[in-house]
Amino acid sequence: MRVDVLTLFPEMLEGVFGSSILGKAQEKGLAALRAVNFRDYAYNKHRTVDDYPYGGGGGMVLKPDPVFAAVEDLPKDPDAPPRIILMCPQGEPFTQRRAEELAEQRHLVFICGHYEGYDERIREHLVTDELSIGDYVLTGGELPAMVVIDSIVRLLPGALGNAASAASDSFSDGLLEYPHYTRPERYRQWDVPEVLLSGHHGRIEAWRREQSLLRTLRRRPELLERAQLSERERAWLAEQRRSIELESGE
Amino acid sequence: MRVDVLTLFPEMLEGVFGSSILGKAQEKGLAALRAVNFRDYAYNKHRTVDDYPYGGGGGMVLKPDPVFAAVEDLPKDPDAPPRIILMCPQGEPFTQRRAEELAEQRHLVFICGHYEGYDERIREHLVTDELSIGDYVLTGGELPAMVVIDSIVRLLPGALGNAASAASDSFSDGLLEYPHYTRPERYRQWDVPEVLLSGHHGRIEAWRREQSLLRTLRRRPELLERAQLSERERAWLAEQRRSIELESGE
Repeated sequence: MRVDVLTLFPEMLEGVFGSSILGKAQEKGLAALRAVNFRDYAYNKHRTVDDYPYGGGGGMVLKPDPVFAAVEDLPKDPDAPPRIILMCPQGEPFTQRRAEELAEQRHLVFICGHYEGYDERIREHLVTDELSIGDYVLTGGELPAMVVIDSIVRLLPGALGNAASAASDSFSDGLLEYPHYTRPERYRQWDVPEVLLSGHHGRIEAWRREQSLLRTLRRRPELLERAQLSERERAWLAEQRRSIELESGE
Repeated sequence: MRVDVLTLFPEMLEGVFGSSILGKAQEKGLAALRAVNFRDYAYNKHRTVDDYPYGGGGGMVLKPDPVFAAVEDLPKDPDAPPRIILMCPQGEPFTQRRAEELAEQRHLVFICGHYEGYDERIREHLVTDELSIGDYVLTGGELPAMVVIDSIVRLLPGALGNAASAASDSFSDGLLEYPHYTRPERYRQWDVPEVLLSGHHGRIEAWRREQSLLRTLRRRPELLERAQLSERERAWLAEQRRSIELESGE
């Protein structure tokens, strides 16, 4: 997979692209990650990439020409036209399902603004996808692009070593993960739950499932609507929900 | 504000901490951002920070001792005890409201795992907040921590220059932003909408509000439930909704 990130701050990406799974995926030849400074495509005297908005108002707006020129100059495989992704608060909320779909692509291009808005013609005539990682305000698209790239590249076959792969189950069954414990058995005055030391595989599995259900109920009850649950689990959760409501005096 | 990030990959943070708003906030003395490698607090022979989970299963789990030791060794102001924030998929979904609340704090500590789960005792006896930036699977807590830090530091008084401040309105009125246009007036065959060139302030404002409402209706209709709308806007939106449904044959 080839990933090009158009940005005015390529130095923000270097440390992340060189470390951990993203660094290893490149060493293994699974992904080629590249930052492109689209200021290099601003052909005016001062190499400006933004300008004042038509119609007035504060803030600057990214001009269409340097962004179009930078995207059009990227090497492309005619058999695998790139997905051109704009990171912006108005985009489609990014999900694990979208990560899985994008992991099937051969070429991804990310466009990252910084402070500025984007000229609408970039949106209408250049990009194929607009993504948002969440409803909070950030300074630029670089961090969101890196989040999306991390979530995609780790899905490429061979990207994760053994140590990492098994820890990736969050959301795979639609529930939050159960608590984990490792050595020491007693840390300060806090002990590992006895069941985990019992060696009784069935009891451990049952405890973990129960903890996972309870944690989801307490923290993210809306996730339970789409989770895969047995009849018995649904009944048990309804009971738990009633006792939580009683506790909180509702 | 002082921000300490406990991580096994400090090099992932350097480029981001040194650039843009975060770099400038440090130059201006508004924020001090520091990465702490908590492997330096693993006092065993091989300096291991993780171990196998009790009860079996794949994946590794971060041991409690190096994380507790690293947090306890941080310089602290007795008058402003730190918020100790664990980045994890089981955390509270991060929002702009939480960013505003955390921007009032004087000391934030972020704990970032990587591949591994966390020993539950870290969660129960050390951290004050657990945050998740979204329901997608990432390799570590570093990118999420940087996302949260960016959203907080840009709210510190003086952090944003003029260029940046005005572009920060997304979500402030609960709607998605209207389209922006800048020069050239015609790019390829695509023109800037005439109203924006009219110089008629009232018409421009009305067009922008309408575009903002329409975009929110089409892309994120659930946001309209909490947005501040006039009676007339609600009626207009109901009409628009009907014609969208007709178009799509529902």
